[in-house]
Formats: sequence, structure tokens, C-alpha cells
Amino acid sequence: MRRQTKTLYSAPMRDLAAEIAEINAPLERDAPALFRALSPLGRRAFFPPDIPSQAAEARSATLNGTTGQITDGRGGAVRLPALAAAFGDLPGRDLDQALLYSPVEGLSEVRQRWREWQRRQAPAGVASSLPLVTAGLSHALSLAADLFGGEGRAVAIPQPFWGNYRQAFAMRTGARVLNGPAYVAGRYNPRAISDALAAVPAGEPAVALLNVPSNPGGYTPDREERRATVAALLDEAERRPLVVICDDAYAGLVFAPAIPRESLFWELAGVHPNLTAVKIDGATKEFSFFGGRVGFLTFAVEPDSEAARSLESKVKMLVRSSIGSPVASSQVILLQALRQEGIAAEVEAVRALLQGRYEALKGALEKVDRNLLTPLPFNSGCFALIELPEKLGLDSETVRRHLLAHHDTGLISIAPRYLRIAHCSVDAAALPELVRRLERAVAELV
Amino acid sequence: MRRQTKTLYSAPMRDLAAEIAEINAPLERDAPALFRALSPLGRRAFFPPDIPSQAAEARSATLNGTTGQITDGRGGAVRLPALAAAFGDLPGRDLDQALLYSPVEGLSEVRQRWREWQRRQAPAGVASSLPLVTAGLSHALSLAADLFGGEGRAVAIPQPFWGNYRQAFAMRTGARVLNGPAYVAGRYNPRAISDALAAVPAGEPAVALLNVPSNPGGYTPDREERRATVAALLDEAERRPLVVICDDAYAGLVFAPAIPRESLFWELAGVHPNLTAVKIDGATKEFSFFGGRVGFLTFAVEPDSEAARSLESKVKMLVRSSIGSPVASSQVILLQALRQEGIAAEVEAVRALLQGRYEALKGALEKVDRNLLTPLPFNSGCFALIELPEKLGLDSETVRRHLLAHHDTGLISIAPRYLRIAHCSVDAAALPELVRRLERAVAELV
Repeated sequence: MRRQTKTLYSAPMRDLAAEIAEINAPLERDAPALFRALSPLGRRAFFPPDIPSQAAEARSATLNGTTGQITDGRGGAVRLPALAAAFGDLPGRDLDQALLYSPVEGLSEVRQRWREWQRRQAPAGVASSLPLVTAGLSHALSLAADLFGGEGRAVAIPQPFWGNYRQAFAMRTGARVLNGPAYVAGRYNPRAISDALAAVPAGEPAVALLNVPSNPGGYTPDREERRATVAALLDEAERRPLVVICDDAYAGLVFAPAIPRESLFWELAGVHPNLTAVKIDGATKEFSFFGGRVGFLTFAVEPDSEAARSLESKVKMLVRSSIGSPVASSQVILLQALRQEGIAAEVEAVRALLQGRYEALKGALEKVDRNLLTPLPFNSGCFALIELPEKLGLDSETVRRHLLAHHDTGLISIAPRYLRIAHCSVDAAALPELVRRLERAVAELV
Repeated sequence: MRRQTKTLYSAPMRDLAAEIAEINAPLERDAPALFRALSPLGRRAFFPPDIPSQAAEARSATLNGTTGQITDGRGGAVRLPALAAAFGDLPGRDLDQALLYSPVEGLSEVRQRWREWQRRQAPAGVASSLPLVTAGLSHALSLAADLFGGEGRAVAIPQPFWGNYRQAFAMRTGARVLNGPAYVAGRYNPRAISDALAAVPAGEPAVALLNVPSNPGGYTPDREERRATVAALLDEAERRPLVVICDDAYAGLVFAPAIPRESLFWELAGVHPNLTAVKIDGATKEFSFFGGRVGFLTFAVEPDSEAARSLESKVKMLVRSSIGSPVASSQVILLQALRQEGIAAEVEAVRALLQGRYEALKGALEKVDRNLLTPLPFNSGCFALIELPEKLGLDSETVRRHLLAHHDTGLISIAPRYLRIAHCSVDAAALPELVRRLERAVAELV
């Protein structure tokens, strides 16, 4: 029967180019702007039919000798007593999941429940994929850089910005960071991304980072600024394939009334054929689970679409080759929270705590001498940003060092003249004193 | 006092090239072969003086507004009750550490204790750095690929090999994978790496992957083969800068008597000026903590040396830009185990469990018809490797699919004619039946 079974079962050695073409075809057809914006690595990435994929096929076999993890022989974990004890009262199946490998795409229940959590704010009918689990938001960012960065790619970032954007895109992939001013004349600039891309020839794909609430600014645009931001991005999408990465790390942490709390992702998803919206979010800030490293990468496509499957194949390859699989233990711990009825109230309690600190800081900053410190507008997130008036001739690193050495107070300096205050990690009662010390430090230096 | 404090505190804007040169200088001087083997990314990587580094400087300040994590205002975590409950009885300070960010290099106590755990087997006087914590062993591998891979770099890997080596080095960085046969005439080949590099011109740096016990082979060289392996690597180091990555994922899982259990890293560290030994290991298999993603990357340099500091700076940048920071929760859980007096006995109990499976599989394979299946030698790790005799004209993917479809049994196929049995995840009592089904499947196909 040899000839016949060969025909039935033998997988002909297909060449790599054919496999890549098959994964890319749905994107080329259904998401051509996204496809054009892929990096060389993004183009060639696909999840290979090796161990995890063969193991997935064998999941229901009565005898399964596929995976190289130590199990009890029936799919359960072999528990080191010292490790198992640290997990407390996890139900047995959850404890097994915490100790064993996560699927490369993440635990199915976590992906489903996080999607529901995300879509509390989504208008009906806007497409969003099942989120892929990553090792925190920085990992999701670096996966996006793998997919859409690469040598010479223009990446627009409002300035000042979180330094890890530069590291993930420029240092790692060779992309070139272009900046537009996040603030003009002390006010939010909705055209920061178009300003950054002004010199990039029309037709050339670009990536934009949209971080709302922002780090280091602690700012969320109001309704009018939000309309202007979306309009500027749509204009830009008229000129080129534009990937807009919505870094929603601080989602929900909004303190001022009348400021919209929904992610801009929901207004950008599917709104223009040239605009590819990508959502990065996670448990780090939303669930105060900094040490857990559970982030998510979500695309603006329907969960069961062919485009979703192609993107999932690419991201899974990038996850596997960068970290193997995402951390299962923290996914299971997050799951205990996501399953709880009252979880939204627990999350709201943290927001309310930060609201108190925000108000304390805002009150203190309103009284500072504007000749020494210019607070930029802030209404959300974890931070406030202070600018040193240019006429003082001081750089912020000088102020930071003086403040640390002589006033026992730590802040972050961002070149050339910004200081970031993280009110999220300081008691409300201590914030006025922190502002006084900062004001005094500047006064001593001028 | 403006002029004076400017002189005292102002950090002149140093140019990037000068910062990179300063980080590279100790390597160029003290580890010139390692330096020559760095990739372009490895050369330019260094930990920038931005948020984490400024936050580290402020750790002891009475008012610390540096870090963007939500705390109780005194450095403790703000605990979501639903998350905190899942950690059971962790002491309060440990629970805080589990919920908050880990330092980029890993928790200090974890690094210290893992180094002690590693050095149980180390001969006195062999240098090894404080291990850097990674998000599992695949992440450590991908960091090594960032450091030493890159376009065109020769990477020698005994064949058959774990597919993720190709993905981390070739797919991600553009390195070229060169293979030598892991087995010659059904026996371990100690010259596999030299065979792979035979056509690479002398003087050109290369990377070698040394995976002992091996995946998919389940093999550890005996004393004689071990001597020959080290000798072949030393010969190769006479010809070029050679980075030997010791992938010690399966460390300690050795079942046959008289087979050395120590990592080859300890015999390669510092043994030749052209040979750079790198150790990758972790809790995944050694502590059966697959879901925790705690891996380590260790260099053969003294912990406080300038070379160690340069390498740490580079790796920290690569960790930060790829995942932000390693997972704190699993580090804290691993710590509960590392602190326990009896932990070596708990680890040994797992090894003993696998020894039973190894023996059951070995017994069953001794009885198979050698005209249908050729078991390769195995004595350690999680796997056994079976070769299909060439004369059968069968490829292993055909056998895998037939076995799954008609015998409800899952194995991994590795082109062209290998099948991998993971005895680590099958009950000892079921292994003879698994081998019978495999033998029957092959018989049906020929």
C-alpha cells in the first residue's frame, strides 16, 4: 500500500517562498495598505509547522508524546511542592495552567475575556481581533516594531516621548524616528504626527505612535482636540499607508470630567483604507499588575477573518522566536480577576486613588511661580510634565541632579527642559512638598 | 550661582558614539574575541541613562516621583484584591515584589541564588557572571542572537536540532545556519560543530549551539565523547573567534550511570582566548516551571569585572527594548523554591520520575524491529529520537500523520526521517503501547 499512503499522507517539502506567499495572500488582498507597511521581517514571518503546531494537532490524542514539558502523563503539571504552595488557592486546573506552557497566542479564556474587557467601550460593529498575549506592553511594542519597523522606516512620535519607543524601533530595527511637537505654545498639538511626517514623500509607508493618556505628558485630548487628532490622521492616510499604534497603556486612568475615556483605536479602526490601527494594552497599569508582564496586541480585523489568521501566524512566529511563549502563571492570576463580577469596581478604586493624587498635584502646581516652572496641561494617566522656562537657561538634567543631591527627591529629566512627576507613586499628602522642593531647587540654580 | 552649578551638575549632551565607545572599551581590551563576534546591534547596544537608570538613582530618595508604577506612596504595591488573593500566602514584601516591576536585570536575590544553584557543579576558580534574568530560555536565546547573530553570521548547529534556533538566529537576525551531523553511523558525533564550520574561512567569527542534554536527541556525551567535543571546539577556536552557547535547558536530567551531569559551560569558560562561552539555563525544566518564563543568561566573566558591566549594560538594553523587564511574579514564586532547604530533593524527585519513564521507553525500544525503526542512543533530557531506515523510503511527516489519524498517537516529526518521542509527558506504563503503535504505523506504511 506504499504508493497510496504516500499520496494520502506525505507532506511534500514545500518551499519557504510558497508558504510565505500563502500567509501573505489574504493581507495583500484584504489589507493592502497594511501589507505595504510590513517590514522585511514582517513579510517573511509565519508560524512554521514545527513543534508547537504539531503539538496543537495532537492535543486530543490518547497517547501524546509531542511536548517537551514534564507532565503527570495525563496532561497535568508535575508540581514542585515549593512552587505550588506559592500559588495559594488556585483551583487545580488553573494551577496546572499556571505551571505549564501557555499556547504561543495566549490562553484562550484570557484572550476572550480581555476582548470583552476592551470592547466595553467599543461602538458596535467596529472590528477587533482576538488579542494576542504578549510579555507586557513593551513586548507588544517590540512585536509591532518587528512587523512594521525596519531599516529607514519613518516612525512619527510626538515629542517629548517615552524613550523605549526609540529603542524598540530605531535601536533594534534601524527605523528612523521623526518628531513633531506634542505641545505648541503650552497646548496639546493635534497635528504632532503630521508635523513629524511633513518631509516624508507621499506614498511612502509610515508608522505613528499615539499614546493616550500620554507618557510623559499625562494628557488626554478633549472632544475638540480629539476630533482634530483623528482628522489630522485621516489627512495623513490620504498621503500614505499609515500604521497607527495606539499605545493604551494608561487606558481608563482619566481624572478630569468631560474628557473622553475611550481608546482612539475605536475611532481609527476601519475608518480609512490606508490607515492600519493597532491596539496595545494590558494588565500592567489597568490592573496594577506591573510584575506580571501580561500585554496584548490587537488588530482592527474580525476575529475569524483570513487577515486575522495571517496576522496571528506572523505574530506567533515573532513571539515564539523572541520569548517562546507568554508567561502562563500571570495569565492565570489575571484570569482570577477577569472572572470576578466586581472587578470593574476594584479597577475603579485604583483610578479613584490616583484621582486624589492628581488633584493634590494639580492644586500644588497651580501655585508655583511661572517664572520658574511651566506645568503643561495634564488630566489623566500617571504623570505631569513640567517645562523649565527657556529664558532660565537651565537644562532639566541639572535640575534633576540638584534635586536628588540636595533635596532628597527623585524626578525624571527629559532633554532638553522637561521634568516628569510620577504622581502615581507618591502619596497625595506628600505631593505639595515635592512641588515645593522642585520650585526651591530651580530657584537655587538660576 | 548659575555658572558654578552648571559646572557641577549639568550633564553635557554626550554624543551617542562616545557613550557606545565607553561601554565597548572594556570588551575590546579584556575580551577581544567576544568583541569581534558582536553583531552590529550587539555593538551599538547599551543601557541608556533614561527612566530605569534615573529611577535606580532615586531608589532611596524620601520623595520619589520617578517610576510610572502605581504604588501605595511608600514603595509598596496597590493590590487589586482579586490578584493578591491568587498569590496565596506570599509574605507581604514578596507579594509587593510580585506585583511591581522587576529591575531590568532581574531581582537581586534571584540572581544571587540562581548563581549559587548553577555553581553547585562548578570547579572553583571558573569565572561566571551574575546571571541576567530573561523571559524564559527562548528569550535568552534570542538575546544571544541579538548580541552575536546578524546578517550572514555563521551559526553552527548539530542536526537534527530544535527549530527555534533557526527562527531566533536566521529568521530574526539574518544569520546563516550551518549544520553538521549530530550522529554519524548511529553514534554521537563530537565534531558536529567543526563539520558545520569546515567551509567558513579561518578568522571569520562564528557562533555554535551546544545543547546538552539535547533536544531532540535526549543525549549527553559520555566522558570520552565529552573530551572529544571539548577538543574539537578548542581546535575550532584556533581558527576563529567562536561563541559557544551552552543551551542547558535540560540540565541535571541525566538517567544513565557514568554520564557526567555538569554543564559543558564549566569546561569551556576561560579555556581559550578565542572561545566565548555563554550559558543559557532556567527554571523551565530544572524546576518544572514551564509557565513561569524565568530563564537566565550567564557569561564567563567575573561578576564585578568591567567586562561584566559592559555585557550587562548591553543585555539590559536588549531586554528593555524587547520586553521592558522580566516577569517579577514568577521570579518571586521561584524564589520561594530557591530559599527552601530541601529544594534539591524536590528537583531530584522529578528527575527520578523521568528516570522511570526513560527506562520504560528504553526497554520498549530495545524490542522493536530494526528494519522498521532505528532508535538513536539516548540517556538524558526529555526525549528519544527514532530514525526511519532510509531503505523504507518513508518520510517522518507521513508516519506522524498516519499515527495521529489511525492510532490516536501524537509524536513530533523532524525532516527528513526523524520522529521525536517526548517521554517526559507520557506515563511510564503507557510508553510500551506508544512504541507498539509507532511500530505498527510504520509497518502499515511500507
